[in-house]
This record gives sequence, structure tokens and C-alpha cells, in this order.
Amino acid sequence: MQALHWNGATLNLDRSYLTPKADEKTALLRVRLAGICSTDLQIFKGYLGFRGVPGHELVGEVKEGPAELVGKRVVVEINFACGRCQFCLGDLGRHCPQRRVMGIVGADGSFAEYVAAPARNLHLIPDSIADEEAVFIEPLAAAFEIIEQVQIGVGDDVLVLGDGKLGLLCAQVLRLTGARLSAVGKHPEKLAILKKLGIRAFVMSDWKPHLYDVVVEATGSTTGLEMALEAVKPRGTLVLKSTVAQNHSLSLAPLVINEITVVGSRCGVFPPALEALAQKSVSVTPLIEKIYPLADGLEAVAHAARPGARKILLRH
Amino acid sequence: MQALHWNGATLNLDRSYLTPKADEKTALLRVRLAGICSTDLQIFKGYLGFRGVPGHELVGEVKEGPAELVGKRVVVEINFACGRCQFCLGDLGRHCPQRRVMGIVGADGSFAEYVAAPARNLHLIPDSIADEEAVFIEPLAAAFEIIEQVQIGVGDDVLVLGDGKLGLLCAQVLRLTGARLSAVGKHPEKLAILKKLGIRAFVMSDWKPHLYDVVVEATGSTTGLEMALEAVKPRGTLVLKSTVAQNHSLSLAPLVINEITVVGSRCGVFPPALEALAQKSVSVTPLIEKIYPLADGLEAVAHAARPGARKILLRH
Repeated sequence: MQALHWNGATLNLDRSYLTPKADEKTALLRVRLAGICSTDLQIFKGYLGFRGVPGHELVGEVKEGPAELVGKRVVVEINFACGRCQFCLGDLGRHCPQRRVMGIVGADGSFAEYVAAPARNLHLIPDSIADEEAVFIEPLAAAFEIIEQVQIGVGDDVLVLGDGKLGLLCAQVLRLTGARLSAVGKHPEKLAILKKLGIRAFVMSDWKPHLYDVVVEATGSTTGLEMALEAVKPRGTLVLKSTVAQNHSLSLAPLVINEITVVGSRCGVFPPALEALAQKSVSVTPLIEKIYPLADGLEAVAHAARPGARKILLRH
Repeated sequence: MQALHWNGATLNLDRSYLTPKADEKTALLRVRLAGICSTDLQIFKGYLGFRGVPGHELVGEVKEGPAELVGKRVVVEINFACGRCQFCLGDLGRHCPQRRVMGIVGADGSFAEYVAAPARNLHLIPDSIADEEAVFIEPLAAAFEIIEQVQIGVGDDVLVLGDGKLGLLCAQVLRLTGARLSAVGKHPEKLAILKKLGIRAFVMSDWKPHLYDVVVEATGSTTGLEMALEAVKPRGTLVLKSTVAQNHSLSLAPLVINEITVVGSRCGVFPPALEALAQKSVSVTPLIEKIYPLADGLEAVAHAARPGARKILLRH
């Protein structure tokens, strides 16, 4: 099959990559649509030392595997967990120490014609959700993870820093809480997506900062944390979403002096995100910038890496 | 009066420093005993740009001020707050944005014959608590702050990193929670203080690390955070106590990937610490290394800065 392959130094289009296999617990999916995420771009800078087929955002169709799934449209929870450890038994398979993570740690991902995944990681997609919406399920679930971890009340003063793809999704999810929400970014055309939904959204130069109860750092850069620390109230909460390959270098004295709580936040479970897509309470398709054929995957990745690019998708 | 004075570049013994004044809301205290803290040593490296008389640990005797206090032995809450802002009204004067902090921000401290402090910041000391115990009230309250901020349950697996003065106090306070407690440090003679209390305490080379529910970082160095991040369970809590003048430089990816909660923790209120001293449920006097006369304050500060030094006190 065709697949994009990262060998640790370069990304190549491999036209004869071995097609994965299904078994009684593993489904083989034909990839209908895959999304390129900032984490993929970090992998190409050395993040986590991954080698293989990247890609952890997809909509697929089950070609082989458990009979009740064959032919169905599905999305895939990306943490392939052992199912037996204390984390798995506590419904936290996404922290299973033995887990593989599709396209990130020890498992090939979605930048290919086909991908294999444990059957229990699949979720059926209702007909009311289009492929172009469902492909956002993974980052949308990561945005919902924030409100799974941190209690955000009606009227809380909440700031989202960053208007990248994840920042735009975080803002949309936080809008559902009834918090007093602001978003700050760099790109007027992206912030316009939020403004259309009634969210206060500012380019940096127009923003008059005050101190917020909760600040979500979704800038995708190492400098965002310092800015977030300056924007959060004493005893407030800072949610850190950005994973970057580089080291952070900053004074953490304000964190101690102001007794800030910093909550690291990563993947979420899919059901709340599927529900939001079905209810049309979030608006994801305006985030799509371009859909490339898989065969033009290298060009697509280069496009995704351009500053300010919205979501780039791959279709075979 | 005699006072140690930090001018931003050097610390000097000033024999004719202006004695502060009392008024109806401010008490004048004769300093009976003052403690040198790692934060003072950080100030001498530039921390917070303080200028004036350092020192925020003391036992004093009220010489002038409100009549009901004169002649009494007292300790002093170090945050001099406005009393009117939202933080003050919410019992969080230690986060008042207008606050001065004794010996740290905008207010002279205890490395002097006399110090002035708002009367409402004073707490009377019961006769059962000796000066040499009461002088530990401020760092002991900072240790109690941990369990004011983070719920620690019986049986939780808790690690204290660092056997400095604050680390030894944190371990003693956490022992009161019934948690399964371990402490790790560098100095066998300091760890012996904890072992005597029945606390599992290890020098680094003897420690077999596993993953803990809660890790308290009290190493006083920038490298402690990285070690703490490695020792905490996914979804666990890391309490950051060290304030240092330098920048931290580290990868924060594990914080996000493992969804760690980092809680900055600083000053605490005094009543729980006074109660613990009165009940003799903590043992602080073994932490004293030497008591110097105030006139030998420069020598005392140099002694406090020696690696591994326990608490150095000043007496006039």
C-alpha cells in the first residue's frame, strides 16, 4: 500500500509499504480521511523518537476484523492500552504504561491507505456526522479533556492562548461551559471563526490582558507558558496543552509565589466529542484549509508546517 | 539600632540603622531570635530585587503598639496585606496584590534588633512553645500549606524530595496525614532526624524509586523539578515548593503527556503550625545548627550558605 514513512531523519512516500493485518481483536481500516496535527510536525523535529507511519487523526472504514464492524465508518481512540493494569482498570487506558500510541509511539498511524487498530478502540460514527467533521474527533476529544480534568464554572474568567487548530477547538469546547471566555491569537482569519460563534477573540495587539481564573495554553510554542503564567490569577489554574520537542526555559518563581496550579492535559475520550459533533454544538469544518491526496503527502506536510496554516487533510 | 542591610550588591552590618516606629496599627518588636532561610540566600543572588533588612523568620517581644500586645511574645505572618481587596476578603491576604512581604518585598525584616509589623499579623505564642521552636513557625506554616492546598489521603504514596530545612519540615507535616511517606535527600545526618520519627528516609544512592501519587519538590534547586516529574505517577500531583532566582530549563512534555498537576505552594497561615508545635507533633529543634549573635550576622549568613547546613539563627 501507499504510506508516508518517517525514518527518524526524513519523511518519504513509500508505494509498497506492507499492508497491516486484521485478527480477531484487531480491525483493518481503510483510511477515508486523515488529519495532520502539530504533534506530527513535532515528531519530524525528533519528538518522542518515533519511527514509522505517522498520523493519529482519521476516519476509516472497517475492511476486516470483527464481523459486526465490517463495512462501518469509525474513528479510533489512539492509545492502544494493555487493558489489564491499574490505569486500564480505572478507565485511564490513555495512561497505560504499556500503551502504544497510533502514529506516535510504537504503532503505525493513519498517513497510509490502511491502518490496523484494536477493535475495542473503535467508535462508530452516526450518519449525521460527515467525514470532514469526524476527522476532528481526536483533537476535539483533547479539548474536552480540559473540562474532564478541571471544573470550570459559569462566570469563571477563562482565557485560551493560541489560535492554532487545538486552540480553536479548546475555545469552542470552553464556550459550552458558560464561562466568561476570551481567546487570544495571531491570525485574524482564524479568530474570525471564533467571533462568528460569539466568542471574544483578540489579536495580541488588541488584547487588554487582565488576570484570569483559568488560562489554557495552546500556543504550541515554548514561549506560551511564560505568557500564560503572567495572565493567571494567584491561586488560579493554568492548563498546559502544548507538547513540544524543545526544552522550556523560564522562571517558575511566579508559579510558586502565586500558587498557580498547572494541569498537564492531553488526550480525551471520544464520546463527549462525538456527541458535540452530532449536536452541531461545535463548528469544525471552517478549520479545514486544504485536502491533499495521500500521494501528495510530502507537499501536504510542508503546507501544514507553514505558520498560520489551518487543518490539512489527506485523502486516498 | 544594629541591622544587617542588603543594598542589592553586598550585605553589611549597619550599627546605626534607623529604628522603626510603632503606631496604633503597627507594633514594634524586639527580635528575640531570627532564622536564616534559603529564600534569604536567593535574595543575595538577586531574587525579587529586594533592598533593605532581610529576614522573615522571627520570634519577637512587643515593645510598643496596641496595649494588649505590649510585653507579649509573638510570631509574625509575613505578608502585610491591604485588608480590603478580593484576596484579603477571601482570607488570602498572602496573595494580596498590594502586599508587602517582611524582609522580601518592600518591608524591612528580622535581621535587626527591632522590626515593625502590622498588629493584625501577630500571633501570641503559648508558654509551652520555646523561642527555639517558635522561630520555625513560618517555614512550618509553609509546610502545612501543602495539605491546605492538596488533599492527601491515608495510604497515598507520597515522596518528599530534598532534605533541606523546608524538606525536613514538609516530611514531618506529611507524616501527620497517614500517607505512605518516603523522603529522599543527600545528607545522612539530616535524614536521621526523619528516621528517628519513623519516616522512610533515603540518601539518593540507596533509594529505589517507583511512581508516587504525590511528590513534594523541596530541593531548593532548579534540577529538582525534573527529578520530581520522573517520580510522579500519571495523573499524579507534584507540589513545587522551591523558589529560586535562576530560570528552569527542562522538557515539560512529560507534564503534558502524563497529565501531571503541578501545584505551586508558598506561605501558609500560622494557626495549624502553632498547634503542631504546642502538641509537640513535629520536632524542629534538631534542625538548629548554630545560633550566632546578630553582630556576627555576616558570618552567620556565610555559614547558612554552606552546602548541607541546617538552620542558622541570629540572636541579639
